[in-house]
Amino acid sequence: MDRAEPRVGRSPRVERVLASRAQWRQEVYRIIFEHDTPAGKGFDILLIAAILLSVTAVMLESVAEISIRHGPVLRTAEWLFTFLFTVEYGLRLATAISVKRYARSFYGVIDLLAVLPTYIGLVVAGGQAFIVIRILRVLRVFRVLKLTQFVGSERELLRALRASGYKIVVFLFAVLTSVVVIGSLMHFLEGAEGGFSSIPRSVYWAIVTITTVGYGDISPQTPIGQVLAAFLMILGYGIIAVPTGIVTVEMARTRGGLGELSSGRATPARTCASCAATGHDADASHCKYCGVAL
Amino acid sequence: MDRAEPRVGRSPRVERVLASRAQWRQEVYRIIFEHDTPAGKGFDILLIAAILLSVTAVMLESVAEISIRHGPVLRTAEWLFTFLFTVEYGLRLATAISVKRYARSFYGVIDLLAVLPTYIGLVVAGGQAFIVIRILRVLRVFRVLKLTQFVGSERELLRALRASGYKIVVFLFAVLTSVVVIGSLMHFLEGAEGGFSSIPRSVYWAIVTITTVGYGDISPQTPIGQVLAAFLMILGYGIIAVPTGIVTVEMARTRGGLGELSSGRATPARTCASCAATGHDADASHCKYCGVAL
Amino acid sequence: MDRAEPRVGRSPRVERVLASRAQWRQEVYRIIFEHDTPAGKGFDILLIAAILLSVTAVMLESVAEISIRHGPVLRTAEWLFTFLFTVEYGLRLATAISVKRYARSFYGVIDLLAVLPTYIGLVVAGGQAFIVIRILRVLRVFRVLKLTQFVGSERELLRALRASGYKIVVFLFAVLTSVVVIGSLMHFLEGAEGGFSSIPRSVYWAIVTITTVGYGDISPQTPIGQVLAAFLMILGYGIIAVPTGIVTVEMARTRGGLGELSSGRATPARTCASCAATGHDADASHCKYCGVAL
Amino acid sequence: MDRAEPRVGRSPRVERVLASRAQWRQEVYRIIFEHDTPAGKGFDILLIAAILLSVTAVMLESVAEISIRHGPVLRTAEWLFTFLFTVEYGLRLATAISVKRYARSFYGVIDLLAVLPTYIGLVVAGGQAFIVIRILRVLRVFRVLKLTQFVGSERELLRALRASGYKIVVFLFAVLTSVVVIGSLMHFLEGAEGGFSSIPRSVYWAIVTITTVGYGDISPQTPIGQVLAAFLMILGYGIIAVPTGIVTVEMARTRGGLGELSSGRATPARTCASCAATGHDADASHCKYCGVAL
Repeated sequence: MDRAEPRVGRSPRVERVLASRAQWRQEVYRIIFEHDTPAGKGFDILLIAAILLSVTAVMLESVAEISIRHGPVLRTAEWLFTFLFTVEYGLRLATAISVKRYARSFYGVIDLLAVLPTYIGLVVAGGQAFIVIRILRVLRVFRVLKLTQFVGSERELLRALRASGYKIVVFLFAVLTSVVVIGSLMHFLEGAEGGFSSIPRSVYWAIVTITTVGYGDISPQTPIGQVLAAFLMILGYGIIAVPTGIVTVEMARTRGGLGELSSGRATPARTCASCAATGHDADASHCKYCGVAL
Repeated sequence: MDRAEPRVGRSPRVERVLASRAQWRQEVYRIIFEHDTPAGKGFDILLIAAILLSVTAVMLESVAEISIRHGPVLRTAEWLFTFLFTVEYGLRLATAISVKRYARSFYGVIDLLAVLPTYIGLVVAGGQAFIVIRILRVLRVFRVLKLTQFVGSERELLRALRASGYKIVVFLFAVLTSVVVIGSLMHFLEGAEGGFSSIPRSVYWAIVTITTVGYGDISPQTPIGQVLAAFLMILGYGIIAVPTGIVTVEMARTRGGLGELSSGRATPARTCASCAATGHDADASHCKYCGVAL
Repeated sequence: MDRAEPRVGRSPRVERVLASRAQWRQEVYRIIFEHDTPAGKGFDILLIAAILLSVTAVMLESVAEISIRHGPVLRTAEWLFTFLFTVEYGLRLATAISVKRYARSFYGVIDLLAVLPTYIGLVVAGGQAFIVIRILRVLRVFRVLKLTQFVGSERELLRALRASGYKIVVFLFAVLTSVVVIGSLMHFLEGAEGGFSSIPRSVYWAIVTITTVGYGDISPQTPIGQVLAAFLMILGYGIIAVPTGIVTVEMARTRGGLGELSSGRATPARTCASCAATGHDADASHCKYCGVAL
Repeated sequence: MDRAEPRVGRSPRVERVLASRAQWRQEVYRIIFEHDTPAGKGFDILLIAAILLSVTAVMLESVAEISIRHGPVLRTAEWLFTFLFTVEYGLRLATAISVKRYARSFYGVIDLLAVLPTYIGLVVAGGQAFIVIRILRVLRVFRVLKLTQFVGSERELLRALRASGYKIVVFLFAVLTSVVVIGSLMHFLEGAEGGFSSIPRSVYWAIVTITTVGYGDISPQTPIGQVLAAFLMILGYGIIAVPTGIVTVEMARTRGGLGELSSGRATPARTCASCAATGHDADASHCKYCGVAL
């Protein structure tokens, strides 16, 4: 994703590039790209606070009453945050190990998109609308947390989800087919009265129903439509078990393998030297099968 | 389901039948029934694209505004796709190993149903309504995917669901009894005001509630009715755990057996050198069928 | 629950009591209380069909339009079924091993309640309303199924639920406390406008929300109320994991113990006579650890 | 939380403090702080009954019709319960091992908050509103139950939840980011018509939707908005699997440790005769701590 930014243990290449630079660029790099010094951590916390404040300002400005009364303050805040984020983006470009890599990385693109809308708003009316994309910068929080206890949790979740991927696609495919078939049937059974005025709208209703959201803006009125709807509800209620089962089993598996490790217990898989048995608990000091010290 | 179509490794019988045929029938068979040549794969992708486009056209035509403006285009598309699917159906009939078997197979029936409504629409007004059944052809996608990584996923899901079958029936029976009893009670407690005008309608409401869909088109107004409704909600909220538990446990079990293989992991399936049996546990040191050391 | 009715393998006492009776009472007992002869099975199926038909008739009669047009037919059917169930109840009383035990058993009481409302309806207007209680007789279906493959499924489900009992009570207690606290808060925050006119009503809303039913008949209008509601939703969405986790783990445990047995595979827990290892698969013929024949 | 109150087996310090006191203080302490004598249990049951009655009275008073008719009775009850709880609080202060510790403990604060609102209501109008906080006293029920079979259940639940903590935080973070991004998008796509009048309101809608609550007070009207809503629903429907998986896996893990004991099963916990360690796996033949054969 963003190989431009070094891991805690810097690679030799990064060290070499940094060493050849002016002192201030080394310092700035350490603060804004790395997270393991007090200055680096402080910067991260300030940055996340600024992102959250900035997004809150954008959200509040969208509320008519607040916008009327506190509009100038909020717009000033927006410009202030945009200015700060622009400076930060400039510093990142100036100190990144590889400018090209950073600019094209996931976070690099997000960083640019976070400041662009305000400037576009000067030229095109309404361009500011997209400023809320700035919230994506908050995802950066995962990078900071990565250095602490969260590392295992996040990696474990992603691993389990990736392993479940194929099965979840199969499941979604089955759900979507059901939804199109039942939605179309409802369009012909219910007609425009209950709100099933077209197939796409009926399919939308079927999704609202199978996921058990149930807004109630569209709902069947005829007995036969209600029977079909009841069937769809029970289907949705029952098959939620499928993704749940898939993810649970994958998670249980992950815990088995690198699980111990990522849960914060630093025990590598232990093997008895005498009988080669594995599966020992993290706190075991003797093989549970033959009693020889591990 | 559809034994008429051969697996990747053709059976000797299929080879024999094919060998006795004209070259073009062999070629067509390979393209439309098999999925392992570039031409076969290309055909599958085109077919699925055509199905999706065709269904999209039908769905769009059901939207009044679009139908008024783009009606002729959509109807032309419908005839075009119907023509293509008719030709395809004819070719399938002409090249299937056993015409009878194909015509009666699940996919054979779907293939026919996918083209019939358009023709029926010429004779009977509104006959076209059922054309959306064409979406079921999309299920064919599972056959194509079967050849790749999906094979394990799909089989595993079905296996777990089949194994959970009895328990899920018991569960559904309990849910339906609760729903009838509570629905009837609500009819007497609430009367017609809140919308509980008849027992079937009240049972419909109970299903909407126990599955946590909650449209809100019918909702209890009296205190005692709300107490009963609250009970039903908590019941529904709690017992969702039952099918989830069932499916999860079955999936965990299935993973034990052929699981390793299908998850894409590199754990080689252990085979007994003596009797060639597979499915040995990770900790097994001897073949569980013949007792020879693995 | 109903020890008055014998299991498949009759106990000596039952045999003794039956032997001392007239031939017809033995026959009737065998047919209506036991399920293992063709006559007994036929009776069970007819009985369940009659119950379902009878309940359907009651449900249809509650629909105004149907009641107006087909009232006489439905009322005749009701009397017919009541007559049949009365005769059946009389025969059960006449042939039960212990009349007292049967009359007080769960199914005995249900059998009586299934016929009483119709008779009460003659004296007290509206007494018939409770006739729908007849649906509970359908639970008898579990007794019939018990003899077939369902035996394991039902017992397994109940076992897992009973084992989870305490934890589920703790969970429900926590949910109810949250619901009362948040419901009361909403009453003070929202007032009568949004529908939060009293604490009980607000608690009802909180239950509708935490269980993710969400009717929408009552919904917060003030920003602070919406924040609290959002919190309650995410709480409800997250803690559904708790009962699910509890039941799943209990089910997984049950499978370990008597699981194999109840899943329809009649393998008792197998132990290797040579090395005393257990955990062999149902189809294993040799110990997977030492290779000795099981 | 509240170390001021002793466990069943009193610590020597508690014994010493108690021994130095007057007889009545020892008696009162035993009744109101301990739960293992008949008098202590009786007191606990009366207390919980009083709390529930008191909360019920407060809830009923908030219903306009009931308040008008039975107002005086309910207000008398409120004062009666407040008086009783005040006396009880006084006795707790008078007999606690450490007054300071009790007053600052979780239950100490709740006990005070349970009586304050009634008195404040005398001075400040509406102060009584917060009396419902009294329901939190009911949590004391966990302390009583702790002495019986619930001990394992509660501890096990908390343990599993704590172990899942980090992963659940990561999950919630991802959910909240999605909700802000999609809510903002909907604000721009739908505008004020469908109710998406501001970003905070749209984010509220997104939470209502992703948690599958679905009130329906705000719902998308434009086709593009409905597509995005459908995506959000399926997302919410699918990712419920994540917390469920997390909690289930943690629970399954916990069961490994102290699980056996708390489930009430007769599997004797295996103890090493040499070092008295427990927690051995079912298949262990040697103590995992000291290596001596079990």
